[in-house]
Amino acid sequence: MWKNNRLTEILHIEVPIIQAPMAGGATTPDLVAAVSNAGGLGCLGAGYMKPDDIQSAISHIRARTHRPFAVNLFIPGHVKQDAQSVAAMMDFLQVKSPAKDAVAEKPDNLVNTIDWLQDFEAQLAVVLAEKVPVFSFTFGCPSEEVLLRLHENGTIVMGTATTVEEAVFLERRGVDAVVAQGSEAGGHRGAFLVTEASHDDAHAALNQHPPFVGLMALLEQIAQAVQIPMVASGGIMNGRGIVASLALGASGVQLGTAFLTTDESGAHPKYKETLLNSTPNTTVVTRAFSGKWARGIRNDFIDLVDGYDGVIPDYPIQNTLTRTIRNWAAKTGRPEYMSLWSGEGGHLCRSMPASQLVAVLVEETEAALRTLG
Amino acid sequence: MWKNNRLTEILHIEVPIIQAPMAGGATTPDLVAAVSNAGGLGCLGAGYMKPDDIQSAISHIRARTHRPFAVNLFIPGHVKQDAQSVAAMMDFLQVKSPAKDAVAEKPDNLVNTIDWLQDFEAQLAVVLAEKVPVFSFTFGCPSEEVLLRLHENGTIVMGTATTVEEAVFLERRGVDAVVAQGSEAGGHRGAFLVTEASHDDAHAALNQHPPFVGLMALLEQIAQAVQIPMVASGGIMNGRGIVASLALGASGVQLGTAFLTTDESGAHPKYKETLLNSTPNTTVVTRAFSGKWARGIRNDFIDLVDGYDGVIPDYPIQNTLTRTIRNWAAKTGRPEYMSLWSGEGGHLCRSMPASQLVAVLVEETEAALRTLG
Repeated sequence: MWKNNRLTEILHIEVPIIQAPMAGGATTPDLVAAVSNAGGLGCLGAGYMKPDDIQSAISHIRARTHRPFAVNLFIPGHVKQDAQSVAAMMDFLQVKSPAKDAVAEKPDNLVNTIDWLQDFEAQLAVVLAEKVPVFSFTFGCPSEEVLLRLHENGTIVMGTATTVEEAVFLERRGVDAVVAQGSEAGGHRGAFLVTEASHDDAHAALNQHPPFVGLMALLEQIAQAVQIPMVASGGIMNGRGIVASLALGASGVQLGTAFLTTDESGAHPKYKETLLNSTPNTTVVTRAFSGKWARGIRNDFIDLVDGYDGVIPDYPIQNTLTRTIRNWAAKTGRPEYMSLWSGEGGHLCRSMPASQLVAVLVEETEAALRTLG
Repeated sequence: MWKNNRLTEILHIEVPIIQAPMAGGATTPDLVAAVSNAGGLGCLGAGYMKPDDIQSAISHIRARTHRPFAVNLFIPGHVKQDAQSVAAMMDFLQVKSPAKDAVAEKPDNLVNTIDWLQDFEAQLAVVLAEKVPVFSFTFGCPSEEVLLRLHENGTIVMGTATTVEEAVFLERRGVDAVVAQGSEAGGHRGAFLVTEASHDDAHAALNQHPPFVGLMALLEQIAQAVQIPMVASGGIMNGRGIVASLALGASGVQLGTAFLTTDESGAHPKYKETLLNSTPNTTVVTRAFSGKWARGIRNDFIDLVDGYDGVIPDYPIQNTLTRTIRNWAAKTGRPEYMSLWSGEGGHLCRSMPASQLVAVLVEETEAALRTLG
């Protein structure tokens, strides 16, 4: 019964299990297709991808599955550019980075960063031209005009909300389903209706980061405020988490961390290994890697930047500044300098093919429902 | 079926719904007795009470119910005493407080604060002498010897854990049930296995406060690590939250905020009114009122102390320093200077007799189970 609801109906999927769109290489076409072939919804995390690469990945996905899949993009937001803070952060990284040869990119590359933001239109053009079955997005909401064009293509649109206000905003704008991202979630916060407070007001730091509402509380809030189907995300790793989400009014779930350690995931082998060996309470929220708040396993790089006295530049500037170090960490296999995004359930990761994980999740959900009933 | 489990069995209660022990006057003997008479477990939040007052309250509870009830105490912890920080905070409060006549208590009163800590032995003596049916505690764990004496009295002992490590610690020490406190919870964090980092290291502030693990993730973690019954707490306001907790392995639930607005609650009328009129996302975590991290509705006093440049003294010193202001706020009916503790579900508060709330929660739980099954 839990499989037949408004979400599976609009998405044309068999089980309401969505593989989260994780940008950065984890969501290979193989992973996306495997999840969709297993009856769930695979998602390409295309936020960092160039338009041509998105097009190529979509072709690869379509070659592997005839089922619906999703493509996810980042909605560009306002970027505060403060040349002095950027220069200071570059100096800091160049001096403190263990990768002495892997210094942050040069000042003129920052121009590219800003240019890159404007690539959203080109990324979106691919999504529109390819008439993808499902389009999901993070960090904002496309205009009504864009939503209309997507809908004219028959594309189902899903947005990410970290608060009830954001969920209401998305519904009013015309989105078809909302992904509720609880505080437990790994990776970047999808928050977008937040007044950006100055990051250097240290005493207000705790109240300054975007709202981190626990998933149970968030699902309650959103379920009562919107009519569109709600997808639960954040720390869900198995059938018990799925049943809890259903009890709180979700029509489906979106799991990211759980899919990082599947065979088809493109996550770095050391990243997979770190997750599989992790214990509870090893994650923190940080702006160290990208300038946006995100949850990941605490490591040397986070500690390094948390000890920085200055202002961390906004996303995507900080993301660009740390890219060379992250690439160096990947190349040399040093997880202590990788962005090890993980939700609060990372220690429950399992190593298996993605199709098997979907099947196990379905079995566990049905077992948990029987136990309750 | 959900009513008959190891928790209801050891507590000798009908429904696994526990009214949280909220110190500060909300848990009147009338409230405690009403919840117990309704088949749940009422709890006296006696952490701030003098031994004689605890004894008197227990007598009042026993005059109103023959059912089991609980008494909760705070386990004293290490207090850093820094005379300079204390003096600075007093100056700040005296200058900035809107209650010009309600200045913080005088320096020699701080001696009383430290004396007060030693009252734990006297508080505990009452609990032992009265052979209370259930003893619960927060901020630590009593010694094995104390647990033995409680058990010899036939008292069931429940401890509070904010992490899986704390839950394992409590089980090993010999506690009978563990209350898992999720990040959504209102009031003080029960955290005790935390290295106290210096509060003035502003850049590490986010990672410095005790772990705030979302309830869904926390229940998963604790369920897999301990054998004793687990009670879910944090943001639970209705039957959906109860069913979600059961799905995640909890045997019962503990609700605090939901009971604050019941008729028998001793919460200030303005506090009740604020809760009943509140909206989602109005809570923050702060050390402003007591020196310990706690979640409450953001107000002028929190903003005032969050803007303070110095070090907030440890609990219970800060708690003593702010008491006069809080008393003044209560006397003059100014919620903007009261500690308005609330979980992340505070906007779902309902005004009704406590017995009715228990009955409604049971009905809602059964309805939610039917919907799932």
